[in-house]
Amino acid sequence: MTPDPRHDAVEVISAKRDRHELTDSQIDWVVDAYTRGEVADEQMSALAMAILLNGMGRREVARWTTAMIASGERMDFSSLSRPTADKHSTGGVGDKITLPLAPLVAACGVAVPQLSGRGLGHTGGTLDKLESIRGWRAALSNDEMLAQLESVGAVICAAGDGLAPADKKLYALRDVTATVPAIPLIASSIMSKKIAEGTGALVLDVKVGTGAFMRTVEEARELATTMVGLGLDAGVHTVALLTDMSTPLGLTAGNALEVRESVEVLAGGGPDDVVELTLALAREMLAGAGHDDVDPADRLADGSAMDVWRAMISAQGGDPDASLPTSRETQVVTAPASGTLARLDAMAVGMAAWRLGAGRARKEDAVQAGAGVVWHARPGDPVSEGQPLLTLHTDEPERFARAMESLEGSFEIQQSEIRRGDSTSPSSFSALVIDRIGA
Amino acid sequence: MTPDPRHDAVEVISAKRDRHELTDSQIDWVVDAYTRGEVADEQMSALAMAILLNGMGRREVARWTTAMIASGERMDFSSLSRPTADKHSTGGVGDKITLPLAPLVAACGVAVPQLSGRGLGHTGGTLDKLESIRGWRAALSNDEMLAQLESVGAVICAAGDGLAPADKKLYALRDVTATVPAIPLIASSIMSKKIAEGTGALVLDVKVGTGAFMRTVEEARELATTMVGLGLDAGVHTVALLTDMSTPLGLTAGNALEVRESVEVLAGGGPDDVVELTLALAREMLAGAGHDDVDPADRLADGSAMDVWRAMISAQGGDPDASLPTSRETQVVTAPASGTLARLDAMAVGMAAWRLGAGRARKEDAVQAGAGVVWHARPGDPVSEGQPLLTLHTDEPERFARAMESLEGSFEIQQSEIRRGDSTSPSSFSALVIDRIGA
Repeated sequence: MTPDPRHDAVEVISAKRDRHELTDSQIDWVVDAYTRGEVADEQMSALAMAILLNGMGRREVARWTTAMIASGERMDFSSLSRPTADKHSTGGVGDKITLPLAPLVAACGVAVPQLSGRGLGHTGGTLDKLESIRGWRAALSNDEMLAQLESVGAVICAAGDGLAPADKKLYALRDVTATVPAIPLIASSIMSKKIAEGTGALVLDVKVGTGAFMRTVEEARELATTMVGLGLDAGVHTVALLTDMSTPLGLTAGNALEVRESVEVLAGGGPDDVVELTLALAREMLAGAGHDDVDPADRLADGSAMDVWRAMISAQGGDPDASLPTSRETQVVTAPASGTLARLDAMAVGMAAWRLGAGRARKEDAVQAGAGVVWHARPGDPVSEGQPLLTLHTDEPERFARAMESLEGSFEIQQSEIRRGDSTSPSSFSALVIDRIGA
Repeated sequence: MTPDPRHDAVEVISAKRDRHELTDSQIDWVVDAYTRGEVADEQMSALAMAILLNGMGRREVARWTTAMIASGERMDFSSLSRPTADKHSTGGVGDKITLPLAPLVAACGVAVPQLSGRGLGHTGGTLDKLESIRGWRAALSNDEMLAQLESVGAVICAAGDGLAPADKKLYALRDVTATVPAIPLIASSIMSKKIAEGTGALVLDVKVGTGAFMRTVEEARELATTMVGLGLDAGVHTVALLTDMSTPLGLTAGNALEVRESVEVLAGGGPDDVVELTLALAREMLAGAGHDDVDPADRLADGSAMDVWRAMISAQGGDPDASLPTSRETQVVTAPASGTLARLDAMAVGMAAWRLGAGRARKEDAVQAGAGVVWHARPGDPVSEGQPLLTLHTDEPERFARAMESLEGSFEIQQSEIRRGDSTSPSSFSALVIDRIGA
């Protein structure tokens, strides 16, 4: 694994350009040399584009992942009294599942070391959402994280700079060079962080549909299969669920809006789809950690998941009883006709929330805690002409116009009644969990 | 042609990544923004790799070329009393043709404004060769160039910084990102400079074989066809010859060594293949400039080409009578058997000359004037066991070992006699001019 100094960047780029498999030695060298700055950004971006267009075999992706892990520190949770399980979502609109899920799984006896990120683009970031809670802080030292895992059982915090620094550098580069949607690079980016994090079990929520990076089930299955393989090779019990992201999750997209909805779920309520996906992922995490005798639905019902949530927020300086921020301005979109809501496009809703101020265009931008979109009906629900269909929230009313633009053509109302799961229904009515990949 | 500020780099890279044709507006914007530094090197290298792997259509290459020309100044030779013609070679081993060709064509009444480069890698640079003549200088102002074209008829000098600066920047980037061998980028790089230079006629010498960038006739034909199309679209009378580069040209590779061989050709002697190719290219240049009633062979025979050479060297400060530098050390490789030399590999000879000090590894390196390789037989010639086959020249004897390494397996001696042009002969005996593309 010691990088071989006999390589050079042009040789490695040429090999992938010419559709050769990269050797282990080439991969170890290029990842290490890029981290050290010996391989320049313009060389790595050319290599990333060659990988995107020419692909990588399973061995190459596994080695690339290992090299990215080796670029930094590895965490170790073996001293904990409980097994560990983590979840990663490839990102969707209204995807607040981590918020109820982490305390729920902890309430079932499995520790959840959830390292999260901030949002960039149309999908929100878990840390951005939690930062709408007064006092809550995302940055923990490794020791603080370990102590909280032992005492509370759940941590959601920012990944430290020491974890897979090669991935941090490469991810920022891919973002500006149109090399994000390369399955080998997406898979190795996610899995290097999760393996370095040291979780014992991992459940991947791979989103498919208009609001996701993966638009087709085939692409999503390829990504999921690649990641499950990487996890298993590294000794992590790994399972992936392919879940629908043509419709946004729940009834809200935005930071404080999604925290409120998550708390409703923890209180035993909340939208059916959020509850369904939270429980499905919780069962997989518990099974992966060897705790499949516990039913997480009971822990939602008896309030113990809510207790962990409150302890988790408090442990990181947050006030779970503080009222959440709301936006200064709202604007309502009403239903133009009566009938059944046949479609609500996830990407359009995500873009609108982003343009209202819930997300950021550049890393250094701030987000608005109160901004976002609330929808008052989900596909399959009846709607009456003139009823509120969507409410837009922002502190800056000049943002409404561009948000409205992204919502053009984003929903459809049909006269005849149709239901989720009907065999005659459009694809947006497909089951929430499309497939499961893993042991 | 005004670049459209509504584009951004990720959009343009994504389009080519996803196999779309770039629009005129996208191309104008990205070339201009890259020249100004608004598009970063790491973005342009990702785009270059996407172009290399996904290609460009004829309209795209033409627009890219136009945008690179627009990035700088254009020269204008319309005030000259003579028509102009220029030649460009894609680079080969022992390719000193420019040296006898420019004065020869000038001696026939057509002015030759030859902007040349320095060598990088295994093919030598015309300016490096001429700089082995005492006092000769490569840098001329545009006014000096125009005056010399009028008075002498031929100029070989360095391209000024004002000509196609986008190409200069892009070429340096491609060199370190393994994106050199992309036909659209090679074609637009060459043609942007030649069109901006303002020549009336252009002959392209597209090399094919082991010692050339293009290894197959198909690739070379594609490059030639693309470049001829670009020239014709820009109103330049353009023709391409596909010529063999599996065997090195002439009997020498190296700076002063090649000047000496060129002077032999101008004196009416020199190796047959150098004379043949010089005359073939001269005839095309003269025809392109409308002077096809003159036979350049007469101008070699009557010494008028030599007169122009001497005037051309003197005009740029060189002493045509000064003795040329020789290397301090030589080493001889003898024939290991008697028979016919069946093969002498161009790439191997080029690499050996480069390693002996005739070429440079990095732009900032100096070259040795006397270094290089002399071969004493050409494919088809009889050789006797123990006779000198190759002589290696360098000032630094520690270079011999690595040069010898590149020569391993570089030649072949057969027992039966074979001749160049025989139908039963190996491909290295094929005709020097393989094909002609153009009007």
